[in-house]
Amino acid sequence: MAFGWIDEQAEQRRSAGLVRTLRPRPADTPLLDLASNDYLGLARHPEVTEGAARAARTWGGGATGSRLVTGTTELHAELEHELADFCGFEAALVFSSGYAANLAAVTALAPHGSLVVSDAGNHASLIDGCRLARGVTQVVAHRDPDSVRKALDGHEGPAVAVSDTVFSVDGDAAPLVALAEACREHGAGLVLDDAHGLGVLGDGGRGAPHAAGVAGADDVVVTVTLSKSLGSQGGAVLGPARVIGHLVNAARTFIFDTGLAPAAAGAALAALRLLRREPGRAARAGAVARELHTRLTAAGLEAVRPDAAVVSVRAPSPEQAVRWAADCRAAGLSVGCFRPPSVPDGISRLRLTARADLSGAEIERAVRVIGDTRP
Amino acid sequence: MAFGWIDEQAEQRRSAGLVRTLRPRPADTPLLDLASNDYLGLARHPEVTEGAARAARTWGGGATGSRLVTGTTELHAELEHELADFCGFEAALVFSSGYAANLAAVTALAPHGSLVVSDAGNHASLIDGCRLARGVTQVVAHRDPDSVRKALDGHEGPAVAVSDTVFSVDGDAAPLVALAEACREHGAGLVLDDAHGLGVLGDGGRGAPHAAGVAGADDVVVTVTLSKSLGSQGGAVLGPARVIGHLVNAARTFIFDTGLAPAAAGAALAALRLLRREPGRAARAGAVARELHTRLTAAGLEAVRPDAAVVSVRAPSPEQAVRWAADCRAAGLSVGCFRPPSVPDGISRLRLTARADLSGAEIERAVRVIGDTRP
Ligand SMILES: Cc1ncc(COP(=O)(O)O)c(C=O)c1O
Ligand SMILES: Cc1ncc(COP(=O)(O)O)c(C=O)c1O
Repeated sequence: MAFGWIDEQAEQRRSAGLVRTLRPRPADTPLLDLASNDYLGLARHPEVTEGAARAARTWGGGATGSRLVTGTTELHAELEHELADFCGFEAALVFSSGYAANLAAVTALAPHGSLVVSDAGNHASLIDGCRLARGVTQVVAHRDPDSVRKALDGHEGPAVAVSDTVFSVDGDAAPLVALAEACREHGAGLVLDDAHGLGVLGDGGRGAPHAAGVAGADDVVVTVTLSKSLGSQGGAVLGPARVIGHLVNAARTFIFDTGLAPAAAGAALAALRLLRREPGRAARAGAVARELHTRLTAAGLEAVRPDAAVVSVRAPSPEQAVRWAADCRAAGLSVGCFRPPSVPDGISRLRLTARADLSGAEIERAVRVIGDTRP
Repeated sequence: MAFGWIDEQAEQRRSAGLVRTLRPRPADTPLLDLASNDYLGLARHPEVTEGAARAARTWGGGATGSRLVTGTTELHAELEHELADFCGFEAALVFSSGYAANLAAVTALAPHGSLVVSDAGNHASLIDGCRLARGVTQVVAHRDPDSVRKALDGHEGPAVAVSDTVFSVDGDAAPLVALAEACREHGAGLVLDDAHGLGVLGDGGRGAPHAAGVAGADDVVVTVTLSKSLGSQGGAVLGPARVIGHLVNAARTFIFDTGLAPAAAGAALAALRLLRREPGRAARAGAVARELHTRLTAAGLEAVRPDAAVVSVRAPSPEQAVRWAADCRAAGLSVGCFRPPSVPDGISRLRLTARADLSGAEIERAVRVIGDTRP
């Protein structure tokens, strides 16, 4: 029977304790949130939600077509202009998701005959971009510019290196300056996914590429998402105008996808303006993460030193990670739980996110609950 | 230099007259819109825009995380429940776009060792799904169940046939009953993309699979988009609960993507409820399309008989298609212009969309302008 094999896979997942189910949440919960990617606490900020509401009223519930037909409003253009300006790039192009932005950047910049050098810890959307691209992909060691250099050595034709700036699972940062150097030596482009850097790293949250001094370079292209620090939905590619013009003409997830909904563009634009006005939010998210890490480590837990706002805590096994997260939840704390197959190294962990608006008392409570419930 | 090859490609596009540029539109324009996919005229409907605004205020600007972490709200669950019920399926899963829904459905249902039989006219997102899937893809002739049957013949292991229900370029429909039969004979699954059927075809807009009597079958999976008839953004996969559960556990564009923004879910839900209350909108869109076709044909233009709400008019060349669309625009009419490389057959055309809320006078005006400006 069609789809019969699905039952076998489901059975395997069940016996391995790896079944995932959805848990719809109410609008208001007493849970302390250390699980979302709402790093700046802006998703529920009235300026952001009013930005969404106003945009829906002014522009409609949807963009009504692909960006090249009817789906580009003046609001999209405004968001692109302000995003590029904020992050230090010549131009920007907005997508319906960060996932789509990554598929676009990698596929459009890796033509037939090209080489894509991809960090082993990259996000699923970059990996899917590599799989879809016409070029050949070489996966290299995690955060290792020498491996990138070696992979680029001797390749003729176009090449790009692709890396997260802050890796989504462990929250560790890529060595951007060294990566840019390695690429430049070889005339290769560098594509950076700053999903977890924008709003947290760099001057006032301008992102990891800005902090590393590589923003705006003519061989650097950056992708961001509007769904984390900016509390909305969508993604963008930032880069030289010629690269953005190329994406408009060549990126399938741009050409054949409906434009981002006006409400999402409006929410992201409001968040961006708020961040410009209150640049201290960015540094605060990083400080909260470091405090979480210090306290968790002091409590004897094995946590990765955070380079941005993600704090990863090791768990002994997938089962124990799941139980740990459930126990946290029962004690009023929502934490992320990452386990196979969603982790590249097979190690299960709790994933905590530091929000800029967490109070000292909330940080203390979170650390206490995590310590009390440890397996 | 990195990205130097981009300039060569740009130059080629320029000399071939195939450069695409974005044209940001204002919120209100005097142009008559026959270009958007807002088939039911709901994108600007106050119930829909208020649905978006209310959802943003209640739930926030974004979903704040992936659907498996914090990104599933009760609003998402409600939308999934009502969509599945409306279209006649056991379960539904909402994605950030129709593109992502298609990538998910094809990749998750085409495991290693499986066969994917794909119609030559399928949408880019289905094609990308085939490229990403672990199974082997065989492309078959357009709208040809016998080719599907032949491709499935003799294959051992899981197999699916994949097809648009209404093809996006020409608006022609797939032979769903015959396709389902061919699949059933071979124990293969059938994946249908009803992006242009939902809201237009079937009883009260329940979609092409519902009209063909294949909705809810245990070997049929349907994808829809929330960005066309429902005037919002997002997509969904509809199918048996076991298939939906499988997607939750296996589809990368579900697991690794931020949940759909609440405003988009709220807008789509409002549109769905409106359509339930005013089922006549669906039939009206189809009637407008047929009237457009009849009048265009009577005026001597070569138009494809519409099976849903898309009316495709042949143009002699890409350059003339572009000029024709520009002339329409200058005369107050916005039409789509499809040309290489966005058309599978290399034929350029004007693409008109019939909106349920077009008046008789507007239809007449549209036909007059298209006739007056013909190359
Ligand atoms: C590193 C990284 N890149 C890209 C994405 C995808 O962005 P989005 O969820 O906005 O589609 C995510 C997470 O969702 C991510 O963690
Ligand atoms: C047939 C078809 N499938 C899928 C899509 C993608 O849906 P979305 O734009 O909502 O991502 C489109 C158009 O955009 C389409 O025409």
